[in-house]
Amino acid sequence: MTSPSSLTRPRFAGVVPPVATPLLLDGAVDHASLARLVDYLIGSGVHGLFALGSTGETAYFTDDQRIEIVRTIVDATAGRVPIIAGAIELTSARIIETARRIVATGVDAIVTTAPLYTLNSAVEVDAHFRAIAAAIDVPLWAYDVPVRVHSKLSLDLLMGLAADGVIAGVKDSSGDDVGFRRLVAANEAAGHPLQLLTGHEVVVDAMLLAGADGVVPGLANVEATGYVDLWDASTRGDWEATRAAQERLNRVFEIVFQPTGLSGDATGVGAFKAAMKARGIIDHATMAFPTQALDAGAVERIEGILAELDLLAERVAR
Amino acid sequence: MTSPSSLTRPRFAGVVPPVATPLLLDGAVDHASLARLVDYLIGSGVHGLFALGSTGETAYFTDDQRIEIVRTIVDATAGRVPIIAGAIELTSARIIETARRIVATGVDAIVTTAPLYTLNSAVEVDAHFRAIAAAIDVPLWAYDVPVRVHSKLSLDLLMGLAADGVIAGVKDSSGDDVGFRRLVAANEAAGHPLQLLTGHEVVVDAMLLAGADGVVPGLANVEATGYVDLWDASTRGDWEATRAAQERLNRVFEIVFQPTGLSGDATGVGAFKAAMKARGIIDHATMAFPTQALDAGAVERIEGILAELDLLAERVAR
Amino acid sequence: MTSPSSLTRPRFAGVVPPVATPLLLDGAVDHASLARLVDYLIGSGVHGLFALGSTGETAYFTDDQRIEIVRTIVDATAGRVPIIAGAIELTSARIIETARRIVATGVDAIVTTAPLYTLNSAVEVDAHFRAIAAAIDVPLWAYDVPVRVHSKLSLDLLMGLAADGVIAGVKDSSGDDVGFRRLVAANEAAGHPLQLLTGHEVVVDAMLLAGADGVVPGLANVEATGYVDLWDASTRGDWEATRAAQERLNRVFEIVFQPTGLSGDATGVGAFKAAMKARGIIDHATMAFPTQALDAGAVERIEGILAELDLLAERVAR
Amino acid sequence: MTSPSSLTRPRFAGVVPPVATPLLLDGAVDHASLARLVDYLIGSGVHGLFALGSTGETAYFTDDQRIEIVRTIVDATAGRVPIIAGAIELTSARIIETARRIVATGVDAIVTTAPLYTLNSAVEVDAHFRAIAAAIDVPLWAYDVPVRVHSKLSLDLLMGLAADGVIAGVKDSSGDDVGFRRLVAANEAAGHPLQLLTGHEVVVDAMLLAGADGVVPGLANVEATGYVDLWDASTRGDWEATRAAQERLNRVFEIVFQPTGLSGDATGVGAFKAAMKARGIIDHATMAFPTQALDAGAVERIEGILAELDLLAERVAR
Repeated sequence: MTSPSSLTRPRFAGVVPPVATPLLLDGAVDHASLARLVDYLIGSGVHGLFALGSTGETAYFTDDQRIEIVRTIVDATAGRVPIIAGAIELTSARIIETARRIVATGVDAIVTTAPLYTLNSAVEVDAHFRAIAAAIDVPLWAYDVPVRVHSKLSLDLLMGLAADGVIAGVKDSSGDDVGFRRLVAANEAAGHPLQLLTGHEVVVDAMLLAGADGVVPGLANVEATGYVDLWDASTRGDWEATRAAQERLNRVFEIVFQPTGLSGDATGVGAFKAAMKARGIIDHATMAFPTQALDAGAVERIEGILAELDLLAERVAR
Repeated sequence: MTSPSSLTRPRFAGVVPPVATPLLLDGAVDHASLARLVDYLIGSGVHGLFALGSTGETAYFTDDQRIEIVRTIVDATAGRVPIIAGAIELTSARIIETARRIVATGVDAIVTTAPLYTLNSAVEVDAHFRAIAAAIDVPLWAYDVPVRVHSKLSLDLLMGLAADGVIAGVKDSSGDDVGFRRLVAANEAAGHPLQLLTGHEVVVDAMLLAGADGVVPGLANVEATGYVDLWDASTRGDWEATRAAQERLNRVFEIVFQPTGLSGDATGVGAFKAAMKARGIIDHATMAFPTQALDAGAVERIEGILAELDLLAERVAR
Repeated sequence: MTSPSSLTRPRFAGVVPPVATPLLLDGAVDHASLARLVDYLIGSGVHGLFALGSTGETAYFTDDQRIEIVRTIVDATAGRVPIIAGAIELTSARIIETARRIVATGVDAIVTTAPLYTLNSAVEVDAHFRAIAAAIDVPLWAYDVPVRVHSKLSLDLLMGLAADGVIAGVKDSSGDDVGFRRLVAANEAAGHPLQLLTGHEVVVDAMLLAGADGVVPGLANVEATGYVDLWDASTRGDWEATRAAQERLNRVFEIVFQPTGLSGDATGVGAFKAAMKARGIIDHATMAFPTQALDAGAVERIEGILAELDLLAERVAR
Repeated sequence: MTSPSSLTRPRFAGVVPPVATPLLLDGAVDHASLARLVDYLIGSGVHGLFALGSTGETAYFTDDQRIEIVRTIVDATAGRVPIIAGAIELTSARIIETARRIVATGVDAIVTTAPLYTLNSAVEVDAHFRAIAAAIDVPLWAYDVPVRVHSKLSLDLLMGLAADGVIAGVKDSSGDDVGFRRLVAANEAAGHPLQLLTGHEVVVDAMLLAGADGVVPGLANVEATGYVDLWDASTRGDWEATRAAQERLNRVFEIVFQPTGLSGDATGVGAFKAAMKARGIIDHATMAFPTQALDAGAVERIEGILAELDLLAERVAR
């Protein structure tokens, strides 16, 4: 098992956006747009990148495609910020295969979930994370996303893994703010062994007040500077400014409520991609098969929201 | 897309057990026990085999291991009965990769689920099955198992896929007997385009009365002749004998209620493997990592149930 | 606690329909139609009546209205068949109040659920049923309907209550056919202390083959003779005829799939009431507030199904 | 329907604790302790009282007991703060009956949920709230508590009811902080027609930063001054002090994690009552039937937590 010292462990804190995966019209990875997106994010002042996450549509890609994608992210980043990458697969043995290939591209950490499809106990999930951590030579993070995994990582499980140095952090997309608050408190009591990032977009101010170490906002693909401003205000202890930044971002976030009748993935990532295209950050809003495209009305409403917030005034430079 | 004629399509009906995957103590596939298991099942009169299903712990194995496993099943079967194999992965593109490797081993059909982890609509799930069917040259089946996939395949979706020749059958492990009954009726009304197999173990008599074309009972790994007897009685229209066969099997099925405090996978497959070992069908009850082993008390209670039902009297010959 | 001997305990077996509650256009109870409905059911040969159940919309009525309704059912029945009545309220103390008023009208048994709204353990649910049974002087039944109560009554709980004579039967609307089969087997092994009625409509043949003592079909409000025929065939051991009767009823049951975009209650009970009105069994299809009425198209499609099955040819005589 | 002007409408903002219901050892209401509890709360500076809520175990009491309880609360309050009272019953007609009796005791507002047990659509739930509001002459609030009601009140539903003056506020115990944030934003955009109270205990600082008008913390029955301090800090805009107050309260809240193996109601309210008794606020920790009592170990651990936080040093004066 890997037990990196605090000296060598890359720190993930602040704004760590999950990088979307731009696609060409035929569904192939649009590497030029992807590199431009990375530049946009880092140029906006983000503190790290989360590659191959749910917002990156990673579940839809083959392992070869995933490697393609992460390589471009690593190359475009050129060491400016640390990169954590998702290894999303069914079970331990399969995750280890995937994770090792991803690690070889040069990412700084791996994040994965509890097993999918199978019916496991907490003891088994604990063994699962330990086996994966032992099989890779970068820090492992736990990804808690019950809406996709259909089980929750418990406080006891996470703090047990933390105590033994198995995991270095948690990306919390559980939507359970009470559970997250208790995790923050337990982590403090234990000497802060874990970095705790919230996957929330619209209550980041509240999560930072509650003690989160940072945030992984999908919406940053559309408007990254807003999250950096929010983060900076919170580090100054200026909570009114933090809240004001959040409330402005929440007006941007209304884009995800414009599509109607589509799936969760089509709606969320679809709205981001439509907005990114409108801002010139990527060339096409194409989504991974079989996710349905937004209709013209939804795209128009999304562009209306961006215009109202002056987010189309100056297109992001290429 | 494949549109096999009724002349060339392998028919899956009757008793089609999901083949368990025996493992050596170190977790490697126990090919000798696996071949013996295949012989036991076919020798008991089963009508087909379901490889790489949930009972076969397929989610826990890498693709290379899956190919190893299915090859041994294909070789040991030697064409005596048709084989349908699971291709369990996250999404369309990944399933196609896996399925093509499995098809190359010589199986007669592929079965897969809706996407895992992602958040898709019915339209997207429909496109998913169509893309997979178009990419392989054996018939495709749909596997409906909400306890693992966390969504249900609707009647309209399945009958739409059937009408276009996309799927050849359904393995129903939905536990929704009303939905299954409506599927049977809709399938009859449409001219029986689908073979409908129930994944149930303890209400097979009822499901056959309701019109199922066959059954995929995990318990057949332990006691296959009982299911063949049940099936034969039902084909004679002797429903009292069918029920009597079911009730005897249900006494055997009590083995799965002996483990306590373990996960769903440890409990179900673990009980089957303990009983198979006790009967001499396989050498070890080892389960795939990280599934926990049964304790000695549970194994003893399982052996007690088998003894009471005279299932240890004559061990299955090697 | 009541411990009625088998001599005095009314037996509920066979077809025991949940009696719908006809309403006048202003929402008041239509006692004339209700009495006619009772006559229709008993005249069709049913073996008992289930008053104040979900199909009877009992949750929507005040206690005074409930007493009105059950009085009319008791009077119209005039002792021809036994009556079991639901006492649906939040918790033990409230159920006891309601149940005592209902018992005073002359019903033969009371049925109730686990507590609603509260968050209780199995130990607490067990105490709940014991307290209610001790407080009333007719037999108590347990009603297992997780889709409404949001918890399931376990096998151990039910058999424990049976062993101590607390409950006399179970109305199972759990949709868990495996659980029901195990309950049947455990009940047989214990000497059949419980009467087990299934709440299913479309798999009654299968549930009777599996060992149910009877059925509580909402659809019998529309077509009672079909269920009596089905029951009679099953008691003769003629399972092909039982299945044929079921399949004919399932064609009638398609009426509940005609409404679109309405709530569960509007759809199910609404379709029954529309069909009952079309057949002349009741005068109005009015539903309890705030349940929405079916639109004209749905009613027309329902009448079309009835016509096709010759169920409008001769309207039920008044 | 009631449409109180902003002049006459009682304002519920700040700290509005749900009043627990102290019981004597035989389960009867302990009116002396209840009056003392009301004094403790108001003396601590709370801004309103929430009578007959989940923390008050209201679901377990008969209507007569509820009236007893609320009368004592009204009398002990003597107009010092406004009182909102829950009317928890199955459906509209039954809620109206209960609510009218409660209103007659002199409370200032009524709060209720969507229907229980029934299967209703959003249109029906909307009609439900409108009918109740029209039937009572105090303002109506909506109570959103999916863990008990098993459905969520949508943003559109709530804002539609607000626009027509049907509801005056929302008590949000949904645990959906994103949904709550959107509700706050929509309410602001509409001119703040609703008072929005959060039912949270441990993330109140975050919810106030997010824009909540107040809080309904069960834990205030144990330690009310902490919540008043937290509220006061937030109104000064001192978010660091707000957070510090929250973090201290969260250490108190650890009492609810001390019971093991008990139901949700036994655990939560049981821990509160054990702590209230230890602090001398009430005489007995008895819970409503059939809720199980805490064991001695849990009580001891709870007292240990209170001692550590100096909450036993000076017992609350009688």
